[in-house]
Amino acid sequence: MEIITSNQNSRVKIWTSLQTAKGREQSGSYLLDGWHLVQEALNQAAPIQAIIATEAQMSAHLIDVPQGVPAFQVTEEVARHIAKTNNPQGIFAQTSLPNNSFDPKYIHSGSWLLLDEIQDPGNAGTLIRTADAAGFEGVALSAGSADPFNPKVVRAMQGSQFHLKVVKDVDLAAWIDALEENDYDVFGTTLSATSVDYKTIVPEKNFALILGNEGQGMKAELQAKTTANLHINFPGKAESLNVAVAGGILMFALN
Amino acid sequence: MEIITSNQNSRVKIWTSLQTAKGREQSGSYLLDGWHLVQEALNQAAPIQAIIATEAQMSAHLIDVPQGVPAFQVTEEVARHIAKTNNPQGIFAQTSLPNNSFDPKYIHSGSWLLLDEIQDPGNAGTLIRTADAAGFEGVALSAGSADPFNPKVVRAMQGSQFHLKVVKDVDLAAWIDALEENDYDVFGTTLSATSVDYKTIVPEKNFALILGNEGQGMKAELQAKTTANLHINFPGKAESLNVAVAGGILMFALN
Repeated sequence: MEIITSNQNSRVKIWTSLQTAKGREQSGSYLLDGWHLVQEALNQAAPIQAIIATEAQMSAHLIDVPQGVPAFQVTEEVARHIAKTNNPQGIFAQTSLPNNSFDPKYIHSGSWLLLDEIQDPGNAGTLIRTADAAGFEGVALSAGSADPFNPKVVRAMQGSQFHLKVVKDVDLAAWIDALEENDYDVFGTTLSATSVDYKTIVPEKNFALILGNEGQGMKAELQAKTTANLHINFPGKAESLNVAVAGGILMFALN
Repeated sequence: MEIITSNQNSRVKIWTSLQTAKGREQSGSYLLDGWHLVQEALNQAAPIQAIIATEAQMSAHLIDVPQGVPAFQVTEEVARHIAKTNNPQGIFAQTSLPNNSFDPKYIHSGSWLLLDEIQDPGNAGTLIRTADAAGFEGVALSAGSADPFNPKVVRAMQGSQFHLKVVKDVDLAAWIDALEENDYDVFGTTLSATSVDYKTIVPEKNFALILGNEGQGMKAELQAKTTANLHINFPGKAESLNVAVAGGILMFALN
């Protein structure tokens, strides 16, 4: 097994580039940080280009890495350099990005979550994790949303990208049209009490749920295209709910 | 109005100390960062010891500050020093910590959220904001939870601390005893499918809901003292839900 001790190593340069959208694009891969995520990738037979670990992590986990997966041992300092944090666990995987060419006209089953410019990486990742738990088929993120393969989103997804489809940079207007064409109900969300109280809705067929930007909400031109727009009534004085919490309440109530 | 240009100013030293638990304790106050939070404190007539703002923010908002509230103008650089961020909005309030001497034996109405070692500031703040929206009477945080007046929690609470009671460093075992003595149902939470499905519960009286640590869940010795322990069934492959999302689902279903 190759042992890498320098931050100037050409592979290390590629792994550190995975912190950026450009680096992920160029290599067609992204980074999993920590054994929990690496193990889930192995469990789900995700395409892994490299396992990278410190000596301690390698001796703990090499037995679980299938033959044929390239493994590289790195120093603690190189591990910190790759992770861009001071205390990484010390085990990573370089994993292929999923195929992002996905045409919504072929969607005929399962519920979908659509994210309209959700910008906070923690919110985006938590929403994908919650959609996974709620049994959704996939999550589509508009251009302008957080990149689902940026390290902060990957941390918050907790491996859910291996359980459901995650599609990025989509044109939500086109997705709404395609899904409605395929007999989906498409539910938008608003903060307005004049839209439909989600508690009155019992979906009887496939549906999609759209959540909007943390500050601005969902775009009005998308609201105009939906089957119905929903809101969450609440008795308290808070102005609004965190979008990931609102999404959880809606996904668990509707699905 | 006093104009402060130096980070060495004695007031500035107190305001920067509010980033730490010790500084908040010593001054009996905490910091609100940004007009949205300052305005909510003014709206709710919270006790404000100082309004601190850059020239631009002061000219925009001084008209909304009641007479008698001390106001201090600071340079952009002092504002960054106080905020400990590079791009603060440039308006702050130093606000008194709420009275933390709160005996649960006097609780006879309203629902309460109890947090057992919720450590992530974003989760703690979002849970308090969600409890506010759901119409809860208060939130009690165990010793070992995030400090609800640390700046990250304050940001995530979005002003909810002015709408409900927020009590920190509580002994949850004593709270459970006191609330049950006062005829409350106290619901714990677990990840175990052998506990009660929350969908089967329709609270008919006052209740408290306990959420546990992000990694370890709720302590077993607390689970043993509750009226019942609940879990959220889910169809998907995710291992668990984010605790703030789980809390949102439970609070909105139960209250």
